[in-house]
Amino acid sequence: VSAAPSKRLGKQTFRFDNPVIVTHTSTVVGRKEGQGPLGKDFDLVKQDNMLGEKSFERAEAKMLEEACALALAKGHYTPDQVDILAAGDLLNQIISANYAARTLSIPFFGLYGACSTFAEGLALAAILVDGGYAGRVLTATSSHHDTAERQYRYPTEFGGQRPPTAQWTVTGAGAAIVEASGQGPRLTQATIGSVFDMGIKDPNNMGAAMAPAAASTIEAHFRDTTRTLDDYDAIVTGDLGIVGQRLLKQLLSEKGLTLGDKHWDCGIMIYDKGQDAHSGGSGCGCSACVFCGHIIKKIRSGQLRRILLVATGALHSPCVVQQGESIPGIAHAVVVEYA
Amino acid sequence: VSAAPSKRLGKQTFRFDNPVIVTHTSTVVGRKEGQGPLGKDFDLVKQDNMLGEKSFERAEAKMLEEACALALAKGHYTPDQVDILAAGDLLNQIISANYAARTLSIPFFGLYGACSTFAEGLALAAILVDGGYAGRVLTATSSHHDTAERQYRYPTEFGGQRPPTAQWTVTGAGAAIVEASGQGPRLTQATIGSVFDMGIKDPNNMGAAMAPAAASTIEAHFRDTTRTLDDYDAIVTGDLGIVGQRLLKQLLSEKGLTLGDKHWDCGIMIYDKGQDAHSGGSGCGCSACVFCGHIIKKIRSGQLRRILLVATGALHSPCVVQQGESIPGIAHAVVVEYA
Repeated sequence: VSAAPSKRLGKQTFRFDNPVIVTHTSTVVGRKEGQGPLGKDFDLVKQDNMLGEKSFERAEAKMLEEACALALAKGHYTPDQVDILAAGDLLNQIISANYAARTLSIPFFGLYGACSTFAEGLALAAILVDGGYAGRVLTATSSHHDTAERQYRYPTEFGGQRPPTAQWTVTGAGAAIVEASGQGPRLTQATIGSVFDMGIKDPNNMGAAMAPAAASTIEAHFRDTTRTLDDYDAIVTGDLGIVGQRLLKQLLSEKGLTLGDKHWDCGIMIYDKGQDAHSGGSGCGCSACVFCGHIIKKIRSGQLRRILLVATGALHSPCVVQQGESIPGIAHAVVVEYA
Repeated sequence: VSAAPSKRLGKQTFRFDNPVIVTHTSTVVGRKEGQGPLGKDFDLVKQDNMLGEKSFERAEAKMLEEACALALAKGHYTPDQVDILAAGDLLNQIISANYAARTLSIPFFGLYGACSTFAEGLALAAILVDGGYAGRVLTATSSHHDTAERQYRYPTEFGGQRPPTAQWTVTGAGAAIVEASGQGPRLTQATIGSVFDMGIKDPNNMGAAMAPAAASTIEAHFRDTTRTLDDYDAIVTGDLGIVGQRLLKQLLSEKGLTLGDKHWDCGIMIYDKGQDAHSGGSGCGCSACVFCGHIIKKIRSGQLRRILLVATGALHSPCVVQQGESIPGIAHAVVVEYA
């Protein structure tokens, strides 16, 4: 058995004793997201989802670059004052993140965790800052409805019928600057998820693919930290949607944990029922924008004192799902608090 | 300006003061790699590149799982004795790594750095162990000739003509166990690369796309550490191939650095000239197998005392290259030594 590492709280959980502060966040979203109930919380709302670019992919990359530039501007930082960029997105070869990294020229950790990437990035940023490897980390993710639909399901131009379990991939990018000093909420713990597969093969039911992973990571967090739900003002999942939320609550209640009103889901929060998003929002951009735009304001203002952000990812690969494979899920969690 | 983090040696380089030991490595390769000059150094040589599976993708995932299982077996570890798995591969949604993570059920960081992923994984493993976040990390990558060709260029069944600049994607997986205690070479520093783009648009010339990134990371390493080439027995790049090696040497000689015989390239080493690999091997599996199978034996035996492993990645996305974009490169480096 390996020697107990000093920063480990339990099998899946690290603790960050040194200050790890989310000093600045930024968000850039599309029109639909701007029209939703959280619209006023986002920094930039683009009326043109193409951002003046010639392809959906270039538009998404530009959105991520703008979010990064805006976060830097808020801190009055130039890119060379940032030690590490940790980023990823949903596109093949995480191309939006790669192009943002090319523009910024910051030493770059490329991440892939599907829609869990934003929490993976926050966790890595916290490790780098807490451990003394970096003083300032920029972490960011993006998604775009039209790039995601054509890569994972059908091109939007095809006009396919979406079933009620389908989620609407958020067009948006969120970025956070994580530092060893400054003002803002702290990242104090992270729980790293393992991959869970319940045999879901329907690319229009990501909530069902992700809910077991979310349940597993939330359970692991409480087990590792010996905390209870009373220690949190909210458990904020990334993009389970209505279908996934129901499954998560059911899975956890079977283990004796009733989330009740303390469960918030970014995918449910970002759109109104009238916005035709069916089960809710999804995508890397969903948890990134709702956290960086909305949740963090509530933490800064004291409305939320401590939350567990649980970003959930469906590790959906069209290539192997077409070969008959199922869609595994993963969820990573970070504790954010004003301590 | 942020406070100087204690583990930072320079703008791009971390130092690992605590023991970070590569205790066990394993390799699984295909027939062609087994027939090459390093064939005897690999643990398992598969005569059937399909590994008895029905698709190339399933074969690659199985190869990665077998490499992980073999590394664990060498240490007499069960998966639940490993704190973190850090893995990635070339396939969309890093699906081989996701499925290996599903089988192993170890808390999982999914990485994407194209062919630089093996060094990205070693760097992250070193951070986790050095920083006290994990006592034992498993890091692994894979590639497969037939999965990569059909995803990035043409399906192998098509029988397209390969130009002389083309490289042969290595069919193979390598895994390493990185621990806070035990016997083996140490990881003592890591230099994290930033993204470089010289405007290459030819998916059959990855060496040219990666060479500038390799040159930049090697320069950054020497600048950050104030070391010189004399401090190293070899600078081992991942998969520049013959074309990329020539470019790297040219780029560095323009900066006054002559690598000479101290430059080794895993892509050149893995195949013989008669094996029809053109410019050399490539893929995540290339640096992983040559390092885990061949280089580390030379370090263990004292033939190499200290090396800089520079895994190079071409961040090639067929989708956006078809839209006219160029292929950026990235390179991450780790110092491996018997200290």
